[in-house]
Amino acid sequence: MARLLRAATWGLFPWRGYCSRGTQEELSKGFVEALKAVVGTPYVSTAAAVRAQHGQDESVHRCQPPDAVVWPQNVDQVSQVAALCYSQGVPIIPFGTGTGIEGGVCAVQGGVCINLTHMDRILELNAKDFSVVVEPGVTRKTLNAYLRDSGLWFPVDPGADASLCGMAATGASGTNAVRYGTMKDNVLNLEVVLPDGRLLHTAGRGRHFRKSAAGYNLTGLFVGSEGTLGLITATTLRLHPLPEATVAATCAFPSVQAAVDSTVNILQAAVPIARIEFLDDVMMDACNRHGKLNCSVAPTLFLEFHGSGQALAEQVQQAEEIALHNGASHFSWAKEAEARSQLWAARHNAWYAMLALRPGSKGYSTDVCVPISRLPEIVVQTKEDLKASGLTGAIVGHVGDGNFHCILLVDPDDAEELRRVKAFAEQLGRRALALHGTCTGEHGIGLGKRQLLQEEVGAVGIETMRQLKATLDPRGLMNPGKVL
Amino acid sequence: MARLLRAATWGLFPWRGYCSRGTQEELSKGFVEALKAVVGTPYVSTAAAVRAQHGQDESVHRCQPPDAVVWPQNVDQVSQVAALCYSQGVPIIPFGTGTGIEGGVCAVQGGVCINLTHMDRILELNAKDFSVVVEPGVTRKTLNAYLRDSGLWFPVDPGADASLCGMAATGASGTNAVRYGTMKDNVLNLEVVLPDGRLLHTAGRGRHFRKSAAGYNLTGLFVGSEGTLGLITATTLRLHPLPEATVAATCAFPSVQAAVDSTVNILQAAVPIARIEFLDDVMMDACNRHGKLNCSVAPTLFLEFHGSGQALAEQVQQAEEIALHNGASHFSWAKEAEARSQLWAARHNAWYAMLALRPGSKGYSTDVCVPISRLPEIVVQTKEDLKASGLTGAIVGHVGDGNFHCILLVDPDDAEELRRVKAFAEQLGRRALALHGTCTGEHGIGLGKRQLLQEEVGAVGIETMRQLKATLDPRGLMNPGKVL
Repeated sequence: MARLLRAATWGLFPWRGYCSRGTQEELSKGFVEALKAVVGTPYVSTAAAVRAQHGQDESVHRCQPPDAVVWPQNVDQVSQVAALCYSQGVPIIPFGTGTGIEGGVCAVQGGVCINLTHMDRILELNAKDFSVVVEPGVTRKTLNAYLRDSGLWFPVDPGADASLCGMAATGASGTNAVRYGTMKDNVLNLEVVLPDGRLLHTAGRGRHFRKSAAGYNLTGLFVGSEGTLGLITATTLRLHPLPEATVAATCAFPSVQAAVDSTVNILQAAVPIARIEFLDDVMMDACNRHGKLNCSVAPTLFLEFHGSGQALAEQVQQAEEIALHNGASHFSWAKEAEARSQLWAARHNAWYAMLALRPGSKGYSTDVCVPISRLPEIVVQTKEDLKASGLTGAIVGHVGDGNFHCILLVDPDDAEELRRVKAFAEQLGRRALALHGTCTGEHGIGLGKRQLLQEEVGAVGIETMRQLKATLDPRGLMNPGKVL
Repeated sequence: MARLLRAATWGLFPWRGYCSRGTQEELSKGFVEALKAVVGTPYVSTAAAVRAQHGQDESVHRCQPPDAVVWPQNVDQVSQVAALCYSQGVPIIPFGTGTGIEGGVCAVQGGVCINLTHMDRILELNAKDFSVVVEPGVTRKTLNAYLRDSGLWFPVDPGADASLCGMAATGASGTNAVRYGTMKDNVLNLEVVLPDGRLLHTAGRGRHFRKSAAGYNLTGLFVGSEGTLGLITATTLRLHPLPEATVAATCAFPSVQAAVDSTVNILQAAVPIARIEFLDDVMMDACNRHGKLNCSVAPTLFLEFHGSGQALAEQVQQAEEIALHNGASHFSWAKEAEARSQLWAARHNAWYAMLALRPGSKGYSTDVCVPISRLPEIVVQTKEDLKASGLTGAIVGHVGDGNFHCILLVDPDDAEELRRVKAFAEQLGRRALALHGTCTGEHGIGLGKRQLLQEEVGAVGIETMRQLKATLDPRGLMNPGKVL
């Protein structure tokens, strides 16, 4: 299984500039045969189209295909593939639904992409214990469809219908995080194939307790590690009881400050709000055009409340009073599921509404998170920066967490515009850092934010992370070039 | 600063058998002088009484005093003391309030105990961001007194008035965890002095955002690491809005099963209960005797609800209906603060009530946590084991989390009884493991549960934890002999 040097230098797109790739080593025929011997011939591909499909996520990061893609059918095969790669020094890139947006699946050093979606069983539902065990091929929508009659649901919702194990790997969160937390708060246990093929159960095999003080928090270390420490082959998730009732609302505000002040007031009043999303005027305009809606072109909050009968009525009343007190001019409540879906469609289609503003352009989404008190100033500053930059961009965010996205439009053939978009995103990251925030609330570091991570956690923080990486992945084979 | 060998072998109490200590090395005069040069002469002690005070927590683990105790006044001094110990290979034991119960502060290899309580400032309150930064000398009661007029509070309540940094180090939880989570869920950032004296901010210096996807979760790794990876010198905590109103209640049940079924039903009904505590018949009897109360000697739930007006009334009604449906025979609600305090006094005094059952005895508290569906069977089994053992013990627990404590009485001079108590605690730990649970929900591993931890996480889990320890504490000086 000796490997053949191909010694090809990949073309670099200087405007993207996140990834560098030197010489490309191709996998030997013997190695590919060995992969086939593990997973079966139909489940290994070296076809260019397949590799290209696996070398890019939904971001503008340049496609960097792996040398081969394999589809293991079970965890033993994942272990064997990992051990094989480890013994030969071949990089390993885990792949779920490919819906990330920080270039997490780009094979910057080539290697074997392990597509885990054929492992798609819901292994164990423990309804009384509010927990479920899923394999990597199970997405959040599949799980919630499965749970429909159980009275339970899994609330973490990053927008995309992502793989739940992928969501654990990237520490996903999304619109419900203000009430139900992020993946960090909802993963109880992980089955992980370590780079050398050994199997780790972060909280012990088969365990699904609610809390523990037993040893180091290995689960917490692997959640959000972006495939750089091991392959997640099963996740035990915490489920929540389905709310008895749900109501949603939108309200438009005279200013960004007024919208964010309302958010802070609602949280301070201990209203257990389930979602509180902010869309700026540009975003609302795009949503109107795209969805043929007639909403105010103004800073707007989208809110959702979960609860039962009286409690829900009280939440709604409190939030409405706070919003009106802060000058909300329009108020629109939706209680029935259909009305709620229509209302949220605008929010969920924000990405496509933006893209429709300038056909042919691509979207570039960056995210930061700041202490909530600093949210008005960073949003206002960012809107001024946007104006000054001449770029087309809008702001949409999970303001209850202090987390927001800036969606920028970019012509992928316009190197100068791409350079400006990248500079803008870096500036936004640094603004967040200056306000005691983080350069990413939920998208992750991937390829694009490694420099910002260094600035965020400092020299000792980075050194500590590097030590952890070197300890758990001593040959540097797990998703190389990401995070650090 | 050469060190002098004392070569004394410490007596071993075979019945305790958790700690072994070989040759004892005494600190050299030069080393003690160097400590004094860092923190000032009044803040270093080698007096036997002081050392003994620092060599034992509230458990029955044998006192194992450090060779010296220092009281640094600021984080620079902590760094310097750590660097000094590191350079000389001297063990370092962090010390807060000493209220642990798994022997976490026992100096099994001697060394320097760093008492952090002189660093007792509340460094920064960010009320709008629901966060606060505290030094190790700040206890949870001090913090909540400080917060009284802010409309905020810190809910994690392990019973003892522990240091908040110590609570972070041990991953504490307690009665409010079912609603507000444990320390793991409420620590936003940590300032840590690493063994060699370097300063790490786990989420970046000065940062206090609500969520992040930036790199490895260092905060999560240090929470619950029991002082074995570094010294926590400041903790950024998440605060919560004070509930508008609080009501508490007790209700007695015909069986353990009925009490636990009610708990599961209340959680499944999505009642956002703040506390739900279980006391068995033995515990209730002890509480009656100790507090001159007249409660039913039966399995009993203590409940507390937090909320506002209507929502609270609805919660209370739902819980009451569920309890009655499960055969609760007595119901007693307390709305006013005074009545609530009286009611909770029984729960809070459980430990002392137990000790009063057999004057002169010591208490031995062990804790486990299981999936909530397995709680009735393990509680019933444990009560049978107690009867068979002839030991005096009672069960009290945070049943909303599946977590409970067994408090056993032991005559410290009766080696045979101590042996039986230890065997009983191990058997209970193994029962929890067999039911997919953990050997400790909140007390930690410390000295006493290292064997159970191995059984819980398996060979690869322990190996991974050992690798992490070796990476972050390569000389093995941080609180040696604990956890692993």
